[in-house]
Parts: sequence; structure tokens; C-alpha cells
Amino acid sequence: MAQAQKITPRAQDFSEWYNDVIMHAELADYSPVRGCMVIRPLGYRIWELMQGALDGMFKATGHRNAYFPLFIPMSFLAKEAEHVEGFAKEVALVTHTRLKATGKTGAGAVMVDPASALEEPLVVRPTSETIIYAMFAKWIQSYRDLPLLLNQWANIVRWEFRTRLFLRTTEFLWQEGHTAHASHDEAEAEARMILGLYRTFAEEWMAMPVLTGVKTDSERFAGALRTYAIEALMQDNKALQSGTSHNLGQNFAKAFEVKYQTAAGGLDFVWNTSWGVSTRLIGGLIMTHSDDNGLIAPPQLAPIQVAIVPIWKSDEEKAQVSGVGSQVKDELAKAAIRVELDLRENMKPGAKYFDWEAKGVPLRLEIGPRDIAAGQAMAARRTGGKAPMRLEGLAAAVIAALGEIQQGLLAAARERRERHSIRGATKAQFLEFMKGEGGFAYGGFCGRATCEAEIKEATSATIRVLPDPEFRSPEAPATCMWCGAKSVAEAVWAQAY
Amino acid sequence: MAQAQKITPRAQDFSEWYNDVIMHAELADYSPVRGCMVIRPLGYRIWELMQGALDGMFKATGHRNAYFPLFIPMSFLAKEAEHVEGFAKEVALVTHTRLKATGKTGAGAVMVDPASALEEPLVVRPTSETIIYAMFAKWIQSYRDLPLLLNQWANIVRWEFRTRLFLRTTEFLWQEGHTAHASHDEAEAEARMILGLYRTFAEEWMAMPVLTGVKTDSERFAGALRTYAIEALMQDNKALQSGTSHNLGQNFAKAFEVKYQTAAGGLDFVWNTSWGVSTRLIGGLIMTHSDDNGLIAPPQLAPIQVAIVPIWKSDEEKAQVSGVGSQVKDELAKAAIRVELDLRENMKPGAKYFDWEAKGVPLRLEIGPRDIAAGQAMAARRTGGKAPMRLEGLAAAVIAALGEIQQGLLAAARERRERHSIRGATKAQFLEFMKGEGGFAYGGFCGRATCEAEIKEATSATIRVLPDPEFRSPEAPATCMWCGAKSVAEAVWAQAY
Repeated sequence: MAQAQKITPRAQDFSEWYNDVIMHAELADYSPVRGCMVIRPLGYRIWELMQGALDGMFKATGHRNAYFPLFIPMSFLAKEAEHVEGFAKEVALVTHTRLKATGKTGAGAVMVDPASALEEPLVVRPTSETIIYAMFAKWIQSYRDLPLLLNQWANIVRWEFRTRLFLRTTEFLWQEGHTAHASHDEAEAEARMILGLYRTFAEEWMAMPVLTGVKTDSERFAGALRTYAIEALMQDNKALQSGTSHNLGQNFAKAFEVKYQTAAGGLDFVWNTSWGVSTRLIGGLIMTHSDDNGLIAPPQLAPIQVAIVPIWKSDEEKAQVSGVGSQVKDELAKAAIRVELDLRENMKPGAKYFDWEAKGVPLRLEIGPRDIAAGQAMAARRTGGKAPMRLEGLAAAVIAALGEIQQGLLAAARERRERHSIRGATKAQFLEFMKGEGGFAYGGFCGRATCEAEIKEATSATIRVLPDPEFRSPEAPATCMWCGAKSVAEAVWAQAY
Repeated sequence: MAQAQKITPRAQDFSEWYNDVIMHAELADYSPVRGCMVIRPLGYRIWELMQGALDGMFKATGHRNAYFPLFIPMSFLAKEAEHVEGFAKEVALVTHTRLKATGKTGAGAVMVDPASALEEPLVVRPTSETIIYAMFAKWIQSYRDLPLLLNQWANIVRWEFRTRLFLRTTEFLWQEGHTAHASHDEAEAEARMILGLYRTFAEEWMAMPVLTGVKTDSERFAGALRTYAIEALMQDNKALQSGTSHNLGQNFAKAFEVKYQTAAGGLDFVWNTSWGVSTRLIGGLIMTHSDDNGLIAPPQLAPIQVAIVPIWKSDEEKAQVSGVGSQVKDELAKAAIRVELDLRENMKPGAKYFDWEAKGVPLRLEIGPRDIAAGQAMAARRTGGKAPMRLEGLAAAVIAALGEIQQGLLAAARERRERHSIRGATKAQFLEFMKGEGGFAYGGFCGRATCEAEIKEATSATIRVLPDPEFRSPEAPATCMWCGAKSVAEAVWAQAY
């Protein structure tokens, strides 16, 4: 499965570079089904590590996992009018339930049995608000049943026309949290809490700095009261919406009759939130850190954190370096480090270095006879730099190095983002910025959808968020960057995935 | 969400009892989609614990997880003729990809857009051999790429007509292992190794004893060379096929052109295995252990292993018992015991006992003021028996008790199974046995499908397995239990789910 071709340089063609990184790192592959990808073991391992971290955070904040049907009756989607109008149109529809022999052989041997048509077609879930809130109506009777805090890990299908590995695929994997509360403020606090948790995950695990804030009406989830998002800036200066958290108000509760008896004895609709992140995050991880040699995986989410490459020229040397390599592997594994010992035959050390670099392994330990004699290994960081490391107390030194690499990646990504952000730009400066390299542009916003539409038309840029206070400019802009009218909020524009 | 009705006694109606246990334990619920269930948090937690244990075993034996598309082109299913003929007919078919407004409002507001018909319909995976081996053909070139050992955790859809919660649902969750090997013997060893692993899981985690063996041709997976299975006996004396492991030979490799260059330089088809267990196991767990008071969860898989119920009559007592309860909870949680402290107001201790029993919690600790004065808690086992436990060193005593309960459940289930097994029966005895309570009937088998068909017609019993040596009767039967011809193998018959 050797990769004959080289990775396209990032500066030459970002999109080709991105695909090449994925192929060389064996993270995913194209499938015979239009728009659907195969997530290969190294890619899936990243997802498992992401799941582990997020699931721990969800459980620590009182959420429990459950599982709801893949299929949703077509009529359910129609119940929340804005939801289906603005969101759930391009979906996979199950209409029949049986195959029938055609009498031919080979690929044409079966056909859809027309006699198996469903009375009501089923939609393959594009998101699960409707089916989940239909169940909430059954389970919630009283304020004592609230809050109800659920999460689901599931596959999702949206019939996308232009697909990109991880970033936008017809089927993808995600988690979707769904909660019900007794008041607007509790739902709001939940949506906000989750947004903070997503930010923590993005920064501490993915080493991917994010802005947080609220979406404008034209970008919010159809059916929501308010949509919050985390937004990251990729290496091509395009923004990636990396997670969203919605305060749904009572919209779905009204559509699905989710009522509860209040503590005072009355009857009221519950207040819902929903929130999700998906395998899209893996695309974000790749585009935040990788380079022309391939993937750079942040140590916290690297399937393999350390690759040990023993170097030998004779059978005798091989026995020695393999033995030490094996000891080192056991020692690191015992310290809960994800480690591989590379004993592949018929492959030169240089080719192995190349391979582990393409796969994004943060730290490589080279062990040759002279290293062993000196009681050390050569430690090469994926982010650059090579220095000897004492074999004695190696695990602690490796853990420290991985921690430094993790921090370094976050700092570098933050520095890059700030380098590609402008604040207080005039309309002319903004247009030039978006025609040039692009990035995050902070400016005043009048609050009118017409301005948003004009800007999108002229530059493809959209408002990613109205940023939270922490990210706002020291001085609040007085006028709309585009139309000059009074500014109602600072906004962050960018071209986006 | 209180359950007003009582659980139907098991002896009165096993099937009603089974459903009632699930509802009272809040493991699952019916959904608005025909044949699809909702797995509620306590049911899903059992699945997560099962997944954790199995996933650890798979990884320890060199398997890696990956993810393949939900959809399979219809023509793929036709490629392995026996597969589609004998297995993959009742499937969900995606034929269209867009909803369209009808102009009406409410539930009828949308319809399938006829203009969105797919050129080739897609099948929602009923199992993934075809799509996975199509990818194997792309990834495998040489013997160096073998063995390829993959596993997938996924949802599966089969259009079943008669569904039962957990046991047979239109959609279910499972894992499916798919491997490729360089020889028949390696594939055979893999299929066998996995069967052993499933047995270990069933016995050590689920406390559910199983028979292992090979299926007859009429019961094997369509497209396989040989199907191995683990079979358990439920409390109604019906068998539950609880996991299967298939040696697929080169059948799928030939259909999907999965070839590799051998070490000798030739070209050959790979040898495949596939194997799976599903959320059906949760049904098996319930039907193996539970009673008229509700679920009995084996401690290894119990979402909640210990419920602490503080008992108070005054606010002062409440403060005291809650404080001690809280300390006990922390101590047990620190020892990695899954524990809940029940501080619900407006609910008497008796009602709480009832609730935790229905939910299958293996051990209940009751703590009242007098218990505290005596330095103890009352420990009530879900399997019977109540005795004081010293608060000092409580965690160790709880762990020991949970271990005893786990062992006791396995021993009781094994004893029950043997009590409902007969060996060396005559045809008349067999007929009487199957007309009566039923169970596992061991007897000689001539190897003819006609005998199997006649027996099924007469008794509904099928051959569950031709058992492995360990389970065979001390003396090999000489003649077929049914027709009297020479026996070629001992068989185990039972009525089955």
C-alpha cells in the first residue's frame, strides 16, 4: 500500500494538498457510494480518541447516552415548519423494503420490488430533533422529569452535492445532544455551557484555537431561537464552523407537544437545546496543523504518539536494537503512551521516517547501536528539532516532550490566526483583505440581513459569529463596516467551508 | 415516569414479562417508526459496557476499528449470488434524495420529489461484506498486506416482519469483524479464535453460559463456507443464537476480485472471515437472569452496581444519613464501582427498593441512623439475601459481594440449562420434550437436510449447533435420533428465537 506519488505542496493547491495528506496518512478513502467516505483505522482512531474525550465531558456534566431510530417518518419533518423549509430538504428517502430477482445473473440480478412500497416514506436522519422530541413528549410529564439531558453518537445523512473528505460527506458521524428544561434561562445556560465545553475540547485536545459567539439570523439553525458556534481558522485562511449549540426555545416542544406540569401546578412547554460536533473535526485538525510532509497530529489525539525506529546494519545489530526498542516500547506503553515499534523489513530507516511523518506521529525515537552505547535515543519532533534523550527515565521525558509539542501547536495556530485577522477595517480594506489572503475580519455590523447578503455576494465572506466579549476588539465599532449605519454588534467575517 | 402497572409474572406470559421488565427497567421504548426501538440511557449503558469489553478483546488480538458507508449500491448485493438469494432480500431501499413542498401545511407539507430519483437505488446495509470487500480489493495487493483485521461498530437495518425489543428490530446496533487472510487455515483459525472470544465474553461478562459449535448447511450464513455460533438457553427454554463467526472461504473474494500476490510470486484470492454480535445480547442478558421483580443485571455489565438508599424520619436524621451515604458513595466511586446515592424526596424507602430491583441493581446498601451507630450498612443482594456490611473497608467487601453475585448468576444459569437439556433421547422422548417445556436436546444426526426439515415441521426445533467436543455427550450417538440412519455428528436441537 505504498504511496508512489508525493504530497502536493500546500502553497500550490490547498485542496489537493488536503486530499493527499489524508491519503498518505491513511485516514480515509473514497467509497463506491457517491459522497460517502470510508474512515480507515488511523482516521477512525482519531475519532475514537475524540469521542472518549467528549463523552467524558458530557457524562461529567450529567448527560447520558441513548440511541434513537435512524429513520424518521416524512411527516415528522414537516411539523416544525422553519426546520424543513430551511434545513431538511436534501435527504435520503427510503421508499421500498424488498429486493426482487430479475431472472438475470450478475450485477443486474435484483431490482426494487414495486410491491414493497411504504405507505409513508422514511427519511434517513439528517439530524434527530423531530424523532427525539416525539419521544420526549412520551417521557416528560412533570417538572420532576426535568432537566432531561441526553446525547446520541450516530451516523447522519445529508444529500450534499459537493463533498469533501471529512468536511462535507453524504454520511458522517457525529454526536447530537438533546435536552429539555423548565425555563428559557436553564436552556440558555445549557447551550452556553456546551459551547464552553466544545471550546475547551478544540483548544486543549485538538490544539485548535476557536472564536465563540452567536450566529446571525441568516446563519442560525432552522428552528432554533439562537445558534452558538465555535469557529476556527484553517491554514488557507478559510473559517471552519467546528461545532454548534442551539437554544431551540419552545419551537420543537410546540410542534411535538412536549408539555410538563410545572412546580406551581400549571402546564407549560419545555425548553430544548441541541448541540453537535462531527467527524468534520478531523478535517479541522488536519487543516490546522499539517504540512507538506503530511499530517501533524496533536499528541492528545494522535493514534500513535511515538514511533520507535531501530537502526541496524547487521543481524547482530538488529538483535540488539530490536531488543532495546522492545524494552523502550514496553516502558512507554506502561506509561499509557500510544507507541509503535517499527521492525518492518525491506524498508530503510529514511523511508520509515518519511512514513511516520506522513502519518503525523508527534515524536520519533531512533535507536542505533551507537545510541545504545551512549545510553540514549535520538528524538525527532514532528514539529521540528532533533535531540538525544536519555534512555533512563525515558517515559517522563517523552511525556514532557509530547506536552511541549501539544502546547506549541496551539500557540502556533493561535499566532497564525491572529496574523490573519484584521480589526476595524474600512470597507475598502475589507474588500482588499477578502480578495487577498483572507482571514478573520472584525468590524461593525448594522444588524441587517441585506448587508450580510451584499457582502456575501461581493466577497463570499459570511459572518461567522458575533463574538463573545473575550474576543471583541477593545473599542466597540461605531458604524457598520459595509453600509456606515449605526453598528449594533461587532461581527467576524470570513470565507468559510 | 412512574410505572403504574406491575410486571406480568414470568410463569404467566414469558413474552409479556420480557416486555414489562424492559419497560420497568427503562432499558428501551417503542418508537413511532415501525419495528425500530429507542434504546434508553440504562439500556444504552449496558451496550456501552458490552462494547468496552468486546472492543478491548478485539484490539488485544490485533483488530482495528474502521467505518464503512451505511449505503450499498444495489448491484453489489447481487454479486455474491447465494448471499442475496438466502439473506439480503428484506432491506430498506433509498430511491430518492429530496423533499418537495406540497403547498399544504402541517404533516402533509412535504412529499418525495419525483425528480430526485437515484439512477441506482441504495440498500441500507443489512450487513457489510459486499461494501467492505470492495474496499479490500483496493487496499490489498500483496501477502505483506495480510492479514487485514478490521472491525466496525455500526447500525444495521433488516426489514423484519415480527419484531421484539432487542431480539429482532428493524434497526439494531452491532459490531461486524471483517478479515482477510492468505490461507484457508488462517481464516479458519481466526473464525475459531473469535468464537472463543465471544464465549469468554458471554460467560465472564454476561454470566450467560453458551454452547459452541458449527451450524448445519441449512442454518449457515448465505455466502459462508462454515458458520460457527454461540447458543444460550433462555428461561423459557428457547435457544438464543447470540453471536456468529463465519469462515467465508474465497466466495466474497471471488465476487469482489480481492486478489493478492503470494510470497511465491503467484496471484490468489484472499480468504475472508466475518463475525458479529449485536444489541440482541441485551435481550439475552435479560432473559437469562431476570425475575418477576424486574431486571437482574450481572455486576460486570450493570450500569449501576450499587444503589445506596439512606433512610430517615426527620430532617436531622436526613442530614446524618445523607452525609454518610455521600461518603460511602465517594469511597465506592473511588474504587471504580458504579454507584448511585438515592436522595429522592417524596418517595419511601420501600418504593426505592422496588425501583432499584426493577432496574436490576445487583447490590443495595440501606443506611439508617441505627446502621450508622452500629458502623454498618444493610446489604441486600438482588439475587436474594440481606446482611450487614461493615462501613470500614466497605469497598473491598462490596467488590467481593459483586464478584460472588456474578459467579452465582453464571452457576445458576448453567445449572438451569443442564436441567433443561436431554441427551440420547429416542424420537418419542424428543417429541414429548419439545411438546413440553423444551430445552436443548442432544442426539445423533444423519446429516440430511430432509431430517432437519421434518423435525422443524413437527416441533419447530432446529439444530442450533453440531457442538464442539467439550459439549458432546460422553458416548457419540450411533444413529440419527429422527430417522435411525447412521449418525454423522451429534446435534443440539431447540426451539429458538
